[in-house]
Amino acid sequence: MKHITVLGTGVLGSQIAYQTAYRGYDVTAYDVSDQALEAARERFAKLAATYRAEVDGAADGAADAAIGRLALTADLADAVADADLVIEAVPEQLELKREVYTKLGALAPSRTIFATNSSTLLPSDLVEFTGRPANFLALHFANQIWVHNTAEIMGTPATDPAVTRAVVEFAESIGMVPIELKKEKSGYVLNSLLVPLLNAAGDLLVEGIAEPEAVDAVWRIGTGAPMGPFQIFDVVGLTTAYHISAAGGPQQQAFAKLLKERYLDQGKLGVATGEGFYSYR
Amino acid sequence: MKHITVLGTGVLGSQIAYQTAYRGYDVTAYDVSDQALEAARERFAKLAATYRAEVDGAADGAADAAIGRLALTADLADAVADADLVIEAVPEQLELKREVYTKLGALAPSRTIFATNSSTLLPSDLVEFTGRPANFLALHFANQIWVHNTAEIMGTPATDPAVTRAVVEFAESIGMVPIELKKEKSGYVLNSLLVPLLNAAGDLLVEGIAEPEAVDAVWRIGTGAPMGPFQIFDVVGLTTAYHISAAGGPQQQAFAKLLKERYLDQGKLGVATGEGFYSYR
Repeated sequence: MKHITVLGTGVLGSQIAYQTAYRGYDVTAYDVSDQALEAARERFAKLAATYRAEVDGAADGAADAAIGRLALTADLADAVADADLVIEAVPEQLELKREVYTKLGALAPSRTIFATNSSTLLPSDLVEFTGRPANFLALHFANQIWVHNTAEIMGTPATDPAVTRAVVEFAESIGMVPIELKKEKSGYVLNSLLVPLLNAAGDLLVEGIAEPEAVDAVWRIGTGAPMGPFQIFDVVGLTTAYHISAAGGPQQQAFAKLLKERYLDQGKLGVATGEGFYSYR
Repeated sequence: MKHITVLGTGVLGSQIAYQTAYRGYDVTAYDVSDQALEAARERFAKLAATYRAEVDGAADGAADAAIGRLALTADLADAVADADLVIEAVPEQLELKREVYTKLGALAPSRTIFATNSSTLLPSDLVEFTGRPANFLALHFANQIWVHNTAEIMGTPATDPAVTRAVVEFAESIGMVPIELKKEKSGYVLNSLLVPLLNAAGDLLVEGIAEPEAVDAVWRIGTGAPMGPFQIFDVVGLTTAYHISAAGGPQQQAFAKLLKERYLDQGKLGVATGEGFYSYR
Protein backbone atom coordinates (compact mmCIF):
# COMPACT_ATOMS: atom_id res chain seq x y z
CA MET A 1 0.00 0.00 0.00
CA LYS A 2 1.37 3.37 -1.00
CA HIS A 3 -1.41 5.85 -1.48
CA ILE A 4 -3.76 6.28 1.43
CA THR A 5 -6.87 8.41 1.34
CA VAL A 6 -8.77 9.49 4.42
CA LEU A 7 -12.37 10.66 3.98
CA GLY A 8 -13.44 13.17 6.59
CA THR A 9 -11.12 15.46 8.55
CA GLY A 10 -12.93 15.70 11.87
CA VAL A 11 -11.31 14.83 15.19
CA LEU A 12 -10.57 11.22 14.31
CA GLY A 13 -10.16 11.58 10.54
CA SER A 14 -7.51 14.27 10.94
CA GLN A 15 -5.61 12.17 13.49
CA ILE A 16 -5.68 9.11 11.20
CA ALA A 17 -4.48 11.13 8.21
CA TYR A 18 -1.75 12.86 10.20
CA GLN A 19 -0.46 9.70 11.89
CA THR A 20 -0.36 7.89 8.52
CA ALA A 21 1.61 10.75 6.96
CA TYR A 22 3.84 10.95 10.06
CA ARG A 23 4.80 7.33 9.43
CA GLY A 24 5.87 8.12 5.88
CA TYR A 25 2.85 7.55 3.64
CA ASP A 26 1.55 9.98 1.06
CA VAL A 27 -1.91 10.77 2.32
CA THR A 28 -4.83 12.48 0.64
CA ALA A 29 -7.29 14.02 3.07
CA TYR A 30 -10.73 14.62 1.64
CA ASP A 31 -13.51 16.77 2.99
CA VAL A 32 -16.64 18.28 1.48
CA SER A 33 -15.78 21.97 1.19
CA ASP A 34 -12.94 24.48 1.13
CA GLN A 35 -14.14 25.64 4.53
CA ALA A 36 -13.84 22.12 5.94
CA LEU A 37 -10.35 21.83 4.43
CA GLU A 38 -9.31 25.11 6.03
CA ALA A 39 -10.39 23.69 9.41
CA ALA A 40 -8.46 20.53 8.56
CA ARG A 41 -5.28 22.54 7.93
CA GLU A 42 -5.63 24.03 11.40
CA ARG A 43 -6.17 20.59 12.92
CA PHE A 44 -3.05 19.25 11.19
CA ALA A 45 -0.98 22.19 12.43
CA LYS A 46 -2.22 21.58 15.98
CA LEU A 47 -1.46 17.88 15.67
CA ALA A 48 2.07 18.69 14.51
CA ALA A 49 2.51 20.87 17.60
CA THR A 50 1.13 18.11 19.84
CA TYR A 51 3.44 15.51 18.28
CA ARG A 52 6.45 17.83 18.69
CA ALA A 53 5.60 18.13 22.39
CA GLU A 54 4.49 14.58 23.16
CA VAL A 55 5.90 12.10 20.64
CA ASP A 56 9.52 10.98 20.93
CA GLY A 57 11.52 12.05 17.87
CA ALA A 58 8.80 14.25 16.41
CA ALA A 59 10.52 17.51 17.28
CA ASP A 60 13.43 16.93 14.87
CA GLY A 61 11.52 17.91 11.76
CA ALA A 62 9.44 14.73 11.58
CA ALA A 63 6.23 16.42 12.73
CA ASP A 64 6.63 19.09 10.05
CA ALA A 65 7.61 16.58 7.36
CA ALA A 66 4.27 14.84 7.93
CA ILE A 67 2.46 18.04 6.94
CA GLY A 68 4.36 17.95 3.64
CA ARG A 69 3.00 14.48 2.86
CA LEU A 70 -0.62 15.53 3.34
CA ALA A 71 -2.59 16.61 0.27
CA LEU A 72 -6.02 18.16 0.88
CA THR A 73 -8.87 18.07 -1.60
CA ALA A 74 -12.63 18.56 -1.84
CA ASP A 75 -12.82 16.53 -5.07
CA LEU A 76 -13.82 12.94 -4.25
CA ALA A 77 -12.93 11.53 -7.70
CA ASP A 78 -9.41 13.00 -7.47
CA ALA A 79 -9.08 11.86 -3.86
CA VAL A 80 -9.64 8.18 -4.61
CA ALA A 81 -8.46 7.79 -8.25
CA ASP A 82 -5.12 6.25 -7.26
CA ALA A 83 -5.86 5.09 -3.69
CA ASP A 84 -4.69 1.71 -2.43
CA LEU A 85 -6.65 2.16 0.80
CA VAL A 86 -9.50 4.52 1.61
CA ILE A 87 -10.18 5.04 5.31
CA GLU A 88 -13.65 6.46 5.80
CA ALA A 89 -14.14 8.70 8.83
CA VAL A 90 -17.24 10.70 7.89
CA PRO A 91 -19.92 11.54 10.49
CA GLU A 92 -21.70 8.63 12.18
CA GLN A 93 -24.92 8.78 10.19
CA LEU A 94 -25.99 5.60 8.44
CA GLU A 95 -27.63 7.31 5.45
CA LEU A 96 -24.68 9.63 4.91
CA LYS A 97 -22.20 6.78 5.04
CA ARG A 98 -24.30 4.74 2.59
CA GLU A 99 -24.34 7.65 0.15
CA VAL A 100 -20.59 8.09 0.50
CA TYR A 101 -19.94 4.38 -0.20
CA THR A 102 -22.27 4.40 -3.18
CA LYS A 103 -20.33 7.29 -4.76
CA LEU A 104 -17.01 5.88 -3.68
CA GLY A 105 -17.73 2.44 -5.14
CA ALA A 106 -18.27 4.03 -8.53
CA LEU A 107 -15.23 6.33 -8.39
CA ALA A 108 -12.46 4.16 -6.91
CA PRO A 109 -10.56 1.43 -8.78
CA SER A 110 -11.87 -2.04 -7.96
CA ARG A 111 -8.53 -2.96 -6.31
CA THR A 112 -8.93 -0.18 -3.72
CA ILE A 113 -9.61 -1.40 -0.19
CA PHE A 114 -12.27 0.50 1.77
CA ALA A 115 -12.09 0.63 5.56
CA THR A 116 -14.64 2.29 7.81
CA ASN A 117 -13.60 3.88 11.08
CA SER A 118 -17.23 3.82 12.28
CA SER A 119 -17.55 3.37 16.06
CA THR A 120 -21.22 2.50 16.20
CA LEU A 121 -22.05 0.75 12.92
CA LEU A 122 -21.04 -2.72 11.81
CA PRO A 123 -19.35 -3.15 8.43
CA SER A 124 -22.31 -5.38 7.50
CA ASP A 125 -24.51 -2.27 7.71
CA LEU A 126 -22.51 -0.75 4.86
CA VAL A 127 -21.02 -3.56 2.79
CA GLU A 128 -23.76 -3.77 0.16
CA PHE A 129 -23.10 -0.15 -0.85
CA THR A 130 -19.37 -0.54 -1.42
CA GLY A 131 -19.42 -2.54 -4.66
CA ARG A 132 -16.50 -4.61 -3.28
CA PRO A 133 -17.51 -6.87 -0.37
CA ALA A 134 -14.18 -8.74 -0.43
CA ASN A 135 -12.25 -5.46 -0.17
CA PHE A 136 -14.18 -3.92 2.69
CA LEU A 137 -13.81 -4.04 6.48
CA ALA A 138 -13.74 -1.87 9.59
CA LEU A 139 -10.49 -0.30 10.82
CA HIS A 140 -11.27 1.48 14.04
CA PHE A 141 -8.95 3.92 15.75
CA ALA A 142 -9.14 5.47 19.21
CA ASN A 143 -9.03 9.16 20.02
CA GLN A 144 -5.48 10.46 20.69
CA ILE A 145 -4.12 7.96 18.21
CA TRP A 146 -0.51 8.80 19.19
CA VAL A 147 -1.16 7.57 22.76
CA HIS A 148 -4.03 5.10 22.42
CA ASN A 149 -2.56 3.31 19.43
CA THR A 150 -4.98 0.45 18.94
CA ALA A 151 -6.45 -0.35 15.54
CA GLU A 152 -9.40 -2.72 15.86
CA ILE A 153 -9.88 -4.63 12.60
CA MET A 154 -13.21 -6.30 11.91
CA GLY A 155 -14.40 -7.77 8.61
CA THR A 156 -17.74 -9.03 7.40
CA PRO A 157 -18.17 -12.69 6.42
CA ALA A 158 -17.42 -11.53 2.85
CA THR A 159 -14.06 -9.90 3.62
CA ASP A 160 -11.12 -11.57 1.87
CA PRO A 161 -8.69 -12.85 4.55
CA ALA A 162 -5.82 -11.52 2.41
CA VAL A 163 -7.37 -8.04 2.65
CA THR A 164 -7.62 -8.38 6.42
CA ARG A 165 -3.94 -9.38 6.55
CA ALA A 166 -2.94 -6.44 4.36
CA VAL A 167 -4.82 -4.03 6.63
CA VAL A 168 -3.27 -5.59 9.75
CA GLU A 169 0.16 -5.00 8.20
CA PHE A 170 -0.75 -1.45 7.24
CA ALA A 171 -1.93 -0.74 10.80
CA GLU A 172 1.37 -2.03 12.19
CA SER A 173 3.30 0.05 9.65
CA ILE A 174 1.75 3.26 10.99
CA GLY A 175 2.61 2.37 14.59
CA MET A 176 -0.68 0.86 15.68
CA VAL A 177 -1.20 -2.31 17.70
CA PRO A 178 -3.57 -4.23 15.41
CA ILE A 179 -6.42 -5.95 17.23
CA GLU A 180 -8.12 -8.47 15.01
CA LEU A 181 -11.74 -9.31 15.77
CA LYS A 182 -12.74 -12.70 14.44
CA LYS A 183 -16.43 -11.78 14.17
CA GLU A 184 -18.41 -8.58 13.99
CA LYS A 185 -19.21 -7.13 17.39
CA SER A 186 -20.98 -3.86 18.05
CA GLY A 187 -18.67 -1.61 20.06
CA TYR A 188 -15.61 -3.66 19.06
CA VAL A 189 -13.51 -4.85 22.02
CA LEU A 190 -12.93 -1.56 23.83
CA ASN A 191 -16.54 -0.45 24.17
CA SER A 192 -17.69 -4.04 24.81
CA LEU A 193 -15.58 -3.84 27.98
CA LEU A 194 -15.92 -0.16 28.83
CA VAL A 195 -19.72 0.15 28.61
CA PRO A 196 -20.44 -2.55 31.25
CA LEU A 197 -17.89 -0.96 33.60
CA LEU A 198 -19.40 2.50 33.13
CA ASN A 199 -22.93 1.12 33.51
CA ALA A 200 -21.93 -0.54 36.78
CA ALA A 201 -20.51 2.75 38.03
CA GLY A 202 -23.71 4.55 37.00
CA ASP A 203 -25.72 1.96 38.92
CA LEU A 204 -23.73 2.64 42.10
CA LEU A 205 -24.58 6.32 41.82
CA VAL A 206 -28.25 5.76 40.96
CA GLU A 207 -28.63 3.33 43.86
CA GLY A 208 -26.97 5.80 46.23
CA ILE A 209 -24.24 3.33 47.23
CA ALA A 210 -21.22 5.60 46.97
CA GLU A 211 -20.06 8.95 45.61
CA PRO A 212 -18.08 9.28 42.35
CA GLU A 213 -14.85 10.17 44.19
CA ALA A 214 -15.11 7.03 46.34
CA VAL A 215 -15.94 4.79 43.37
CA ASP A 216 -13.02 6.15 41.37
CA ALA A 217 -10.61 5.81 44.30
CA VAL A 218 -11.53 2.14 44.72
CA TRP A 219 -11.00 1.48 41.02
CA ARG A 220 -7.66 3.28 40.83
CA ILE A 221 -6.26 1.71 43.98
CA GLY A 222 -7.77 -1.73 43.42
CA THR A 223 -6.72 -2.14 39.78
CA GLY A 224 -3.86 0.33 39.33
CA ALA A 225 -5.77 2.11 36.54
CA PRO A 226 -4.98 5.81 36.10
CA MET A 227 -8.65 6.83 36.01
CA GLY A 228 -11.84 5.67 37.65
CA PRO A 229 -15.12 5.33 35.72
CA PHE A 230 -16.41 8.81 36.59
CA GLN A 231 -13.16 10.35 35.42
CA ILE A 232 -13.62 8.41 32.17
CA PHE A 233 -17.19 9.73 31.89
CA ASP A 234 -15.83 13.27 32.16
CA VAL A 235 -13.33 12.61 29.34
CA VAL A 236 -15.90 10.90 27.08
CA GLY A 237 -18.29 13.78 27.76
CA LEU A 238 -21.52 13.63 29.73
CA THR A 239 -23.68 14.40 26.67
CA THR A 240 -22.43 11.23 24.96
CA ALA A 241 -22.88 9.30 28.20
CA TYR A 242 -26.43 10.66 28.44
CA HIS A 243 -27.40 9.60 24.91
CA ILE A 244 -25.97 6.10 25.35
CA SER A 245 -27.64 5.67 28.76
CA ALA A 246 -30.99 7.05 27.60
CA ALA A 247 -31.08 4.33 24.92
CA GLY A 248 -30.46 1.57 27.50
CA GLY A 249 -32.59 -0.40 29.96
CA PRO A 250 -34.39 0.97 33.04
CA GLN A 251 -31.20 1.22 35.16
CA GLN A 252 -29.36 3.08 32.40
CA GLN A 253 -32.32 5.37 31.86
CA ALA A 254 -32.31 6.23 35.57
CA PHE A 255 -28.64 7.15 35.22
CA ALA A 256 -29.44 9.26 32.14
CA LYS A 257 -32.05 11.15 34.19
CA LEU A 258 -29.54 11.75 36.98
CA LEU A 259 -26.96 12.94 34.43
CA LYS A 260 -29.43 15.35 32.89
CA GLU A 261 -30.71 16.82 36.14
CA ARG A 262 -27.46 17.09 38.07
CA TYR A 263 -25.01 17.82 35.25
CA LEU A 264 -26.28 18.57 31.72
CA ASP A 265 -28.93 21.03 32.91
CA GLN A 266 -26.21 22.91 34.84
CA GLY A 267 -23.94 23.03 31.79
CA LYS A 268 -21.57 20.51 33.36
CA LEU A 269 -20.60 18.36 30.39
CA GLY A 270 -17.24 17.02 31.51
CA VAL A 271 -13.63 17.98 30.86
CA ALA A 272 -14.58 19.95 27.73
CA THR A 273 -16.61 22.51 29.73
CA GLY A 274 -14.28 22.59 32.73
CA GLU A 275 -16.69 20.70 34.98
CA GLY A 276 -18.49 17.37 35.12
CA PHE A 277 -18.26 14.92 37.98
CA TYR A 278 -15.06 16.80 38.81
CA SER A 279 -14.00 20.41 38.35
CA TYR A 280 -11.13 21.07 35.91
CA ARG A 281 -10.99 24.83 36.38
CA MET B 1 -9.14 2.90 69.68
CA LYS B 2 -6.08 1.31 71.21
CA HIS B 3 -6.47 -2.41 71.34
CA ILE B 4 -7.28 -4.10 68.08
CA THR B 5 -8.06 -7.79 67.73
CA VAL B 6 -8.08 -9.63 64.42
CA LEU B 7 -9.93 -12.96 64.27
CA GLY B 8 -8.48 -15.33 61.71
CA THR B 9 -4.90 -15.28 60.43
CA GLY B 10 -5.37 -16.44 56.85
CA VAL B 11 -4.15 -14.45 53.84
CA LEU B 12 -6.25 -11.36 54.57
CA GLY B 13 -6.43 -11.64 58.35
CA SER B 14 -2.66 -11.78 58.69
CA GLN B 15 -2.25 -8.77 56.40
CA ILE B 16 -4.82 -6.74 58.36
CA ALA B 17 -3.18 -7.63 61.69
CA TYR B 18 0.32 -6.90 60.41
CA GLN B 19 -0.59 -3.58 58.75
CA THR B 20 -2.38 -2.44 61.93
CA ALA B 21 0.65 -3.32 64.06
CA TYR B 22 2.96 -1.73 61.49
CA ARG B 23 1.07 1.53 62.00
CA GLY B 24 1.68 1.41 65.75
CA TYR B 25 -1.28 -0.38 67.31
CA ASP B 26 -1.07 -3.23 69.78
CA VAL B 27 -2.75 -6.07 67.92
CA THR B 28 -3.99 -9.41 69.14
CA ALA B 29 -4.23 -12.03 66.40
CA TYR B 30 -6.55 -14.90 67.19
CA ASP B 31 -6.80 -18.25 65.48
CA VAL B 32 -8.30 -21.59 66.48
CA SER B 33 -5.25 -23.73 67.24
CA ASP B 34 -1.57 -23.65 68.04
CA GLN B 35 -0.95 -25.07 64.59
CA ALA B 36 -2.84 -22.18 62.97
CA LEU B 37 -0.85 -19.72 65.10
CA GLU B 38 2.42 -21.31 64.01
CA ALA B 39 1.35 -20.74 60.39
CA ALA B 40 0.43 -17.16 61.33
CA ARG B 41 3.93 -16.56 62.73
CA GLU B 42 5.35 -17.60 59.38
CA ARG B 43 2.94 -15.33 57.51
CA PHE B 44 3.91 -12.38 59.70
CA ALA B 45 7.61 -13.05 59.14
CA LYS B 46 7.02 -13.17 55.38
CA LEU B 47 5.00 -9.98 55.52
CA ALA B 48 7.81 -8.26 57.41
CA ALA B 49 10.22 -9.33 54.65
CA THR B 50 7.81 -8.07 51.97
CA TYR B 51 7.39 -4.72 53.73
CA ARG B 52 11.17 -4.35 54.11
CA ALA B 53 11.50 -4.87 50.36
CA GLU B 54 8.47 -2.97 49.10
CA VAL B 55 7.29 -0.37 51.62
CA ASP B 56 9.18 2.92 51.97
CA GLY B 57 10.70 3.27 55.41
CA ALA B 58 9.97 -0.31 56.48
CA ALA B 59 13.57 -1.47 56.22
CA ASP B 60 14.78 0.75 59.10
CA GLY B 61 13.47 -1.50 61.85
CA ALA B 62 9.79 -0.59 61.37
CA ALA B 63 8.88 -3.92 59.77
CA ASP B 64 10.45 -5.80 62.68
CA ALA B 65 8.93 -3.50 65.31
CA ALA B 66 5.49 -4.45 63.96
CA ILE B 67 6.18 -8.08 64.83
CA GLY B 68 6.84 -6.97 68.42
CA ARG B 69 3.37 -5.40 68.64
CA LEU B 70 1.58 -8.60 67.55
CA ALA B 71 0.33 -10.97 70.25
CA LEU B 72 -0.96 -14.36 69.13
CA THR B 73 -3.53 -16.41 70.98
CA ALA B 74 -5.92 -19.33 70.51
CA ASP B 75 -8.07 -18.21 73.48
CA LEU B 76 -11.03 -16.21 72.20
CA ALA B 77 -12.01 -14.83 75.61
CA ASP B 78 -8.50 -13.51 76.20
CA ALA B 79 -8.32 -12.16 72.66
CA VAL B 80 -11.35 -9.92 72.99
CA ALA B 81 -11.49 -9.12 76.73
CA ASP B 82 -9.98 -5.66 76.29
CA ALA B 83 -10.57 -5.04 72.57
CA ASP B 84 -11.80 -1.68 71.30
CA LEU B 85 -12.24 -3.10 67.80
CA VAL B 86 -12.50 -6.70 66.64
CA ILE B 87 -11.92 -7.25 62.92
CA GLU B 88 -13.32 -10.62 61.90
CA ALA B 89 -11.56 -12.35 59.03
CA VAL B 90 -12.59 -15.98 59.51
CA PRO B 91 -13.39 -18.23 56.51
CA GLU B 92 -16.31 -17.17 54.26
CA GLN B 93 -18.89 -19.61 55.62
CA LEU B 94 -22.12 -18.14 56.88
CA GLU B 95 -22.72 -20.73 59.62
CA LEU B 96 -19.16 -20.48 60.88
CA LYS B 97 -19.32 -16.69 61.03
CA ARG B 98 -22.67 -16.81 62.84
CA GLU B 99 -21.20 -19.15 65.47
CA VAL B 100 -18.18 -16.88 65.88
CA TYR B 101 -20.35 -13.79 66.38
CA THR B 102 -22.59 -15.60 68.87
CA LYS B 103 -19.56 -16.53 70.99
CA LEU B 104 -17.95 -13.15 70.48
CA GLY B 105 -21.07 -11.24 71.48
CA ALA B 106 -21.05 -13.02 74.83
CA LEU B 107 -17.30 -12.63 75.44
CA ALA B 108 -16.51 -9.07 74.36
CA PRO B 109 -17.39 -5.91 76.35
CA SER B 110 -20.50 -4.21 75.02
CA ARG B 111 -18.44 -1.16 73.96
CA THR B 112 -16.32 -3.26 71.59
CA ILE B 113 -16.95 -2.57 67.90
CA PHE B 114 -17.17 -5.62 65.63
CA ALA B 115 -16.20 -5.31 61.96
CA THR B 116 -16.47 -8.09 59.42
CA ASN B 117 -14.00 -8.31 56.54
CA SER B 118 -16.38 -10.63 54.66
CA SER B 119 -16.17 -10.24 50.86
CA THR B 120 -19.33 -12.09 49.94
CA LEU B 121 -21.74 -11.61 52.85
CA LEU B 122 -23.60 -8.48 53.85
CA PRO B 123 -23.35 -7.25 57.44
CA SER B 124 -27.15 -7.70 57.59
CA ASP B 125 -26.55 -11.45 57.22
CA LEU B 126 -24.65 -11.40 60.52
CA VAL B 127 -25.92 -8.48 62.59
CA GLU B 128 -28.51 -10.37 64.64
CA PHE B 129 -25.79 -12.66 66.04
CA THR B 130 -23.53 -9.88 67.29
CA GLY B 131 -25.57 -8.70 70.29
CA ARG B 132 -24.62 -5.10 69.35
CA PRO B 133 -26.30 -3.92 66.13
CA ALA B 134 -25.21 -0.30 66.65
CA ASN B 135 -21.56 -1.37 67.05
CA PHE B 136 -21.34 -3.60 64.00
CA LEU B 137 -20.41 -2.98 60.36
CA ALA B 138 -18.27 -4.29 57.49
CA LEU B 139 -14.67 -3.16 57.06
CA HIS B 140 -13.38 -4.76 53.90
CA PHE B 141 -9.75 -4.83 52.87
CA ALA B 142 -8.16 -5.84 49.58
CA ASN B 143 -5.42 -8.41 49.10
CA GLN B 144 -1.90 -6.91 49.24
CA ILE B 145 -3.10 -4.33 51.72
CA TRP B 146 0.21 -2.44 51.55
CA VAL B 147 -0.38 -1.69 47.84
CA HIS B 148 -4.15 -1.85 47.42
CA ASN B 149 -4.90 0.22 50.48
CA THR B 150 -8.66 0.64 50.26
CA ALA B 151 -10.91 -0.03 53.22
CA GLU B 152 -14.53 -0.27 52.15
CA ILE B 153 -16.80 0.55 55.09
CA MET B 154 -20.43 -0.53 54.97
CA GLY B 155 -22.91 -0.53 57.84
CA THR B 156 -26.40 -1.93 58.27
CA PRO B 157 -29.38 0.39 58.88
CA ALA B 158 -28.75 -0.22 62.62
CA THR B 159 -25.11 0.91 62.64
CA ASP B 160 -24.50 4.00 64.79
CA PRO B 161 -23.09 6.78 62.53
CA ALA B 162 -20.58 7.59 65.28
CA VAL B 163 -19.28 4.03 65.01
CA THR B 164 -18.95 4.39 61.25
CA ARG B 165 -16.99 7.62 61.75
CA ALA B 166 -14.74 5.98 64.33
CA VAL B 167 -13.98 3.10 61.94
CA VAL B 168 -13.32 5.53 59.07
CA GLU B 169 -10.80 7.31 61.30
CA PHE B 170 -9.25 4.03 62.35
CA ALA B 171 -8.88 2.98 58.69
CA GLU B 172 -7.14 6.26 57.89
CA SER B 173 -4.87 5.86 60.88
CA ILE B 174 -3.54 2.56 59.55
CA GLY B 175 -2.82 4.06 56.12
CA MET B 176 -5.98 3.02 54.30
CA VAL B 177 -8.10 5.13 51.97
CA PRO B 178 -11.52 4.77 53.59
CA ILE B 179 -14.35 4.22 51.13
CA GLU B 180 -17.70 4.76 52.77
CA LEU B 181 -20.68 2.96 51.24
CA LYS B 182 -23.96 4.65 52.07
CA LYS B 183 -25.99 1.45 51.71
CA GLU B 184 -25.27 -2.25 51.75
CA LYS B 185 -24.16 -3.61 48.39
CA SER B 186 -23.07 -7.13 47.66
CA GLY B 187 -19.51 -7.06 46.33
CA TYR B 188 -18.95 -3.55 47.72
CA VAL B 189 -17.69 -1.05 45.14
CA LEU B 190 -14.69 -2.91 43.75
CA ASN B 191 -16.42 -6.14 42.81
CA SER B 192 -19.53 -4.26 41.66
CA LEU B 193 -17.28 -2.74 38.99
CA LEU B 194 -14.86 -5.59 38.38
CA VAL B 195 -17.37 -8.40 37.89
CA PRO B 196 -19.20 -6.73 34.94
CA LEU B 197 -15.85 -5.97 33.27
CA LEU B 198 -14.66 -9.55 33.70
CA ASN B 199 -18.02 -10.92 32.53
CA ALA B 200 -17.80 -8.78 29.38
CA ALA B 201 -14.32 -10.12 28.70
CA GLY B 202 -15.56 -13.68 29.22
CA ASP B 203 -18.38 -13.00 26.75
CA LEU B 204 -15.87 -11.90 24.07
CA LEU B 205 -14.03 -15.18 24.49
CA VAL B 206 -17.17 -17.33 24.57
CA GLU B 207 -18.53 -15.59 21.46
CA GLY B 208 -15.21 -16.07 19.64
CA ILE B 209 -14.77 -12.33 19.02
CA ALA B 210 -11.14 -11.95 20.05
CA GLU B 211 -8.32 -13.74 21.86
CA PRO B 212 -7.33 -12.89 25.47
CA GLU B 213 -4.08 -11.21 24.38
CA ALA B 214 -5.97 -8.93 21.97
CA VAL B 215 -8.66 -8.09 24.54
CA ASP B 216 -6.05 -7.25 27.17
CA ALA B 217 -4.02 -5.13 24.75
CA VAL B 218 -7.07 -3.04 23.87
CA TRP B 219 -7.87 -2.49 27.54
CA ARG B 220 -4.33 -1.56 28.53
CA ILE B 221 -3.78 0.79 25.61
CA GLY B 222 -7.28 2.22 25.59
CA THR B 223 -7.54 2.96 29.32
CA GLY B 224 -3.94 3.07 30.53
CA ALA B 225 -4.63 0.27 33.01
CA PRO B 226 -1.64 -1.94 33.90
CA MET B 227 -3.55 -5.19 33.33
CA GLY B 228 -6.29 -6.38 31.01
CA PRO B 229 -9.20 -8.51 32.24
CA PHE B 230 -7.59 -11.87 31.39
CA GLN B 231 -4.46 -10.87 33.29
CA ILE B 232 -6.74 -10.02 36.23
CA PHE B 233 -8.43 -13.44 35.89
CA ASP B 234 -5.00 -15.06 36.17
CA VAL B 235 -4.23 -13.11 39.36
CA VAL B 236 -7.64 -13.79 40.94
CA GLY B 237 -7.26 -17.46 40.04
CA LEU B 238 -9.26 -19.39 37.46
CA THR B 239 -10.84 -21.66 40.09
CA THR B 240 -12.43 -18.65 41.76
CA ALA B 241 -13.45 -17.28 38.36
CA TYR B 242 -14.98 -20.66 37.54
CA HIS B 243 -17.06 -20.82 40.72
CA ILE B 244 -18.35 -17.26 40.31
CA SER B 245 -19.18 -17.81 36.62
CA ALA B 246 -20.82 -21.19 37.20
CA ALA B 247 -23.26 -19.49 39.60
CA GLY B 248 -24.21 -16.85 36.99
CA GLY B 249 -26.55 -16.65 34.01
CA PRO B 250 -26.31 -18.65 30.75
CA GLN B 251 -23.47 -16.49 29.30
CA GLN B 252 -21.44 -16.80 32.51
CA GLN B 253 -22.09 -20.54 32.63
CA ALA B 254 -20.77 -20.87 29.08
CA PHE B 255 -17.62 -19.07 30.22
CA ALA B 256 -17.36 -21.40 33.25
CA LYS B 257 -17.52 -24.39 30.87
CA LEU B 258 -14.79 -22.91 28.68
CA LEU B 259 -12.65 -22.21 31.75
CA LYS B 260 -13.07 -25.76 32.96
CA GLU B 261 -12.34 -27.46 29.64
CA ARG B 262 -9.48 -25.30 28.41
CA TYR B 263 -7.80 -24.38 31.69
CA LEU B 264 -8.87 -26.05 34.96
CA ASP B 265 -8.85 -29.58 33.49
CA GLN B 266 -5.27 -28.94 32.28
CA GLY B 267 -4.17 -27.74 35.71
CA LYS B 268 -3.91 -24.16 34.44
CA LEU B 269 -5.27 -22.17 37.37
CA GLY B 270 -3.57 -18.83 36.82
CA VAL B 271 -0.50 -17.11 38.23
CA ALA B 272 -0.42 -19.43 41.27
CA THR B 273 0.24 -22.52 39.11
CA GLY B 274 2.53 -20.77 36.64
CA GLU B 275 -0.02 -20.86 33.82
CA GLY B 276 -3.51 -19.63 33.08
CA PHE B 277 -4.47 -17.47 30.13
CA TYR B 278 -0.75 -16.62 30.10
CA SER B 279 2.35 -18.56 31.03
CA TYR B 280 4.36 -17.29 34.02
CA ARG B 281 7.10 -19.90 33.93
